[in-house]
Amino acid sequence: MVYLDYSATTPIDKRVLESFERTSLEYIGNPNSLHSEGVKAKKLMDAAVSQVASILKVKDEEIIFTSGASESNNLAIFGVINKYKDRGKTIITTKFEHSSILESVNYLENNGYHIKYVKLDNNGQVDLNDLEKLIDDDTIIVSICEVNSETGIQEDVCKIGEILKKYPRVIYHVDGTQAVGKKNINLENIDLYSFSAHKIYGPKGIGVLVKKENIELMPIIHGGKSQTIYRAGTPPLSLMVACAKALRLITDDLEYNIKYVADLNKKIINNLKDIDGISLNSNSYSIPHIINISVKDVKPETILHALEENEIYISTKTACSVDDISIPVYTLTGDLEKAKTSIRISLSHLTKENEIDFFIEKLKEKIKKLQSIRN
Amino acid sequence: MVYLDYSATTPIDKRVLESFERTSLEYIGNPNSLHSEGVKAKKLMDAAVSQVASILKVKDEEIIFTSGASESNNLAIFGVINKYKDRGKTIITTKFEHSSILESVNYLENNGYHIKYVKLDNNGQVDLNDLEKLIDDDTIIVSICEVNSETGIQEDVCKIGEILKKYPRVIYHVDGTQAVGKKNINLENIDLYSFSAHKIYGPKGIGVLVKKENIELMPIIHGGKSQTIYRAGTPPLSLMVACAKALRLITDDLEYNIKYVADLNKKIINNLKDIDGISLNSNSYSIPHIINISVKDVKPETILHALEENEIYISTKTACSVDDISIPVYTLTGDLEKAKTSIRISLSHLTKENEIDFFIEKLKEKIKKLQSIRN
Repeated sequence: MVYLDYSATTPIDKRVLESFERTSLEYIGNPNSLHSEGVKAKKLMDAAVSQVASILKVKDEEIIFTSGASESNNLAIFGVINKYKDRGKTIITTKFEHSSILESVNYLENNGYHIKYVKLDNNGQVDLNDLEKLIDDDTIIVSICEVNSETGIQEDVCKIGEILKKYPRVIYHVDGTQAVGKKNINLENIDLYSFSAHKIYGPKGIGVLVKKENIELMPIIHGGKSQTIYRAGTPPLSLMVACAKALRLITDDLEYNIKYVADLNKKIINNLKDIDGISLNSNSYSIPHIINISVKDVKPETILHALEENEIYISTKTACSVDDISIPVYTLTGDLEKAKTSIRISLSHLTKENEIDFFIEKLKEKIKKLQSIRN
Repeated sequence: MVYLDYSATTPIDKRVLESFERTSLEYIGNPNSLHSEGVKAKKLMDAAVSQVASILKVKDEEIIFTSGASESNNLAIFGVINKYKDRGKTIITTKFEHSSILESVNYLENNGYHIKYVKLDNNGQVDLNDLEKLIDDDTIIVSICEVNSETGIQEDVCKIGEILKKYPRVIYHVDGTQAVGKKNINLENIDLYSFSAHKIYGPKGIGVLVKKENIELMPIIHGGKSQTIYRAGTPPLSLMVACAKALRLITDDLEYNIKYVADLNKKIINNLKDIDGISLNSNSYSIPHIINISVKDVKPETILHALEENEIYISTKTACSVDDISIPVYTLTGDLEKAKTSIRISLSHLTKENEIDFFIEKLKEKIKKLQSIRN
């Protein structure tokens, strides 16, 4: 099998799974319980929180465990707008966001909120002048995706954060789901930051929202105090420990892995140039882990299933997409055909060079065949 | 160790943990992905959904996986009130609910909703006449806890459901978190039903909201379609499979386990009668798994820590409680002293008879000592 859909989800690291198992067997108490089995569980939970916090260079109290990035994104948006109701009704975001942001703001737009989409330039970069123009006294929150999940394009979230410092009433959320484990993270100028474990070789069902201490949130899941007052529910201790472990492991090898994946990326890009009818939607701002291309006149599903015959797995767009076209590709290119025919190849440090050779060989073969059928 | 806090959380069944592990290793795709690794994962997800549905005798489309009972309860309440805004602003519930219901309705009360608490009789049973009196044209939802987590008292949720049939505009939610795996479940007259896996020897971080097909919900976690349109986020496949397995295992042995726990319960109750200053807050409506007592003049924390010296673990109140007194015990007895001094002993089919003997011996010893210090 040649799995090239690591941006949809990653296989769990066996060391992470072992942490999950060990915790599940050795810690039977509820971290919210007062007795020593509960206290023992709470200590381990606190250690997991500390580990995540120290890797992200934030405070322990700034870590909120959630069920994943979709919940983190929703908690960021709804948590802020419900807590700071008196500040206004305008949300600024981009067309590059994940469906969990776009559907949240769509819902809010139908419920009296104003959603403003900041302009992106030809490279998919947030137009900083436009951003400042959009901010007014009614603006509560700006939400920006650090790495777009379909094209891999990075935004300069630090620079955006610096600009937003001028507007202290505006809260700044960054969706880092496709960034964590694939690039260096700097949360210095960011108020709220989302990510999930299953994109970094951790289990599905656990994520984090970093919330700087000066920000408050209204919970979206109400109840008793749990790991934090912002998210009720029995703390899923084994998932938390596994998430912390996954984050540590991916961070330990980050520099090496980035370099390795960049080399694979280069190889693919160089080879794609030889194939007729392919246009690259990823650009120099993209992380090396994600390559997005459009294939002229061939439906992405057709390529996906053709490659599947050789056990090669790629993606047409993000697994959580709600639309029939790729909105990021359309936003970027303004070309409906490209947006309808885009595919995503997503790489990992686990990807082997011979897998890439095989993929390139088969991709060339399939495209040639599919285009000849059409012509 | 004598763990008598099974209602706070249960140790994971090793067979369930094995299912989690196997799924994590063998299914690497995102169930939302189109390629065959995704399809393979989706098939297993569908099988897990089917298994849960068939055990609960509902349709596959009526199962919504969530991150746990707190989320399920929140999704039931907020999902309904946001979807059926035009129906009214009144919610009817009881003082016997879990904090995830009580805090949700507290929040709503501060945001323009009317919360009515139905009268409970001396046995903690919902006063059916009062319930009918409370229902008016403004009532959207009635939310009732099937088994109270502190006293184990069951409500006749079927009978309540029959009465509510007369009011088809009123949606009926039941929190079954402490009921599933401890009694026979009948969802026939119920619109929405919550529970979580970690109370039935499954992993923490996964739960279910059953939603009958004629009911709609507004999501509280917005995003792309996932397992259902009511809950976004990458489906946590291994957790779902483990949840289904836990539910199957606990259901297979249900009758035997209930009988076994009932015998343990009888033994404890008989022995408690000999101890001065103990009053029983559980009653004949309680499930055998939960025994709630108040100990005159002794702080519950003091008993908890005294028993802890012998590695016996009980609970002062539910792990997720937000208040300093036991609201259920106060509601039931009207006695503030009893509500301040209540402890919960919660049993399992895993509890051994010699553990109970040891517990009774030590409880007698500790209470005698603590009361003598006081006198």
